[in-house]
Amino acid sequence: MAHTIANKEKLLLRVRKIKGQMNGIEKALEQETDCFKVLQQISASRGAIQSLMREVLDGHIKEHLGNHVSNEQREKEIENLTSLFKTYLK
Amino acid sequence: MAHTIANKEKLLLRVRKIKGQMNGIEKALEQETDCFKVLQQISASRGAIQSLMREVLDGHIKEHLGNHVSNEQREKEIENLTSLFKTYLK
Amino acid sequence: MAHTIANKEKLLLRVRKIKGQMNGIEKALEQETDCFKVLQQISASRGAIQSLMREVLDGHIKEHLGNHVSNEQREKEIENLTSLFKTYLK
Amino acid sequence: MAHTIANKEKLLLRVRKIKGQMNGIEKALEQETDCFKVLQQISASRGAIQSLMREVLDGHIKEHLGNHVSNEQREKEIENLTSLFKTYLK
Repeated sequence: MAHTIANKEKLLLRVRKIKGQMNGIEKALEQETDCFKVLQQISASRGAIQSLMREVLDGHIKEHLGNHVSNEQREKEIENLTSLFKTYLK
Repeated sequence: MAHTIANKEKLLLRVRKIKGQMNGIEKALEQETDCFKVLQQISASRGAIQSLMREVLDGHIKEHLGNHVSNEQREKEIENLTSLFKTYLK
Repeated sequence: MAHTIANKEKLLLRVRKIKGQMNGIEKALEQETDCFKVLQQISASRGAIQSLMREVLDGHIKEHLGNHVSNEQREKEIENLTSLFKTYLK
Repeated sequence: MAHTIANKEKLLLRVRKIKGQMNGIEKALEQETDCFKVLQQISASRGAIQSLMREVLDGHIKEHLGNHVSNEQREKEIENLTSLFKTYLK
């Protein structure tokens, strides 16, 4: 996964930010914070996960379907990708 | 937030599961795991966040817009909710 | 449905715009237009439907859960709304 | 767009079904039907559009990124696809 290696630090920052958001939601629930604030935090974390998805997917398509890939590998990745979309794009 | 208090343990379990998923994604990126597996894990965690959102929202609507709420409070919550949807339902 | 009556013309314009987009997609498929353009048109029409949903939902919440509504009516609408979200927010 | 040609009738059926749903929503608004029913119809039509998107996208990826495609063409399609996701996967 050359692209996730190249972008490794950037992607890890995104993941750690989402972990921080989850810690915030956990604390808010434990401390019985105002419920609407919890909803706003969950909404923000969903946005962050979707951005992470988009970024990994972008690299994945460029890296694993591009011209430098073997025919066999490409065929497998196309199958992977379309099966992923069956779930993700419901 | 009576409903998040009543469901507190159930909601906390969901949040902790998502934290576990984020730890898995972090580790997968650090160890340069197969990229498609990372995509599948991100897809699953998005589903888990959406379920969390739906569950908190469900309780929120029942609890904060219901008949037992003061008119003033309900008015404020309706404003909150419609403003949240402007972002969440884009 | 006081709010859809008040906003009737505005909502009808949105619906007719989406019908126009569907006609465009139908024609593009019939004429075997460039496939990527079809994808772009479908993507745009999904955005238009989501905006329509948000707008009707916004009015619905204000109108059918507000302070002027009877307790019985509000109870029913809260049930309706949370059941809708079970499908819409998957 | 070989795949949209092969699946032409199937895709056209989907598009026409969505047009029918839009006609239903238009009529419901004009006749000032129960607002919650309008929300359910909009929710259903969003589902139908997402299924259409998934189906066209599935064919698109198989057809336009596959092994039979020229390098130049594939490069262009990868760019198209990742730019589409910037909007569609927000």
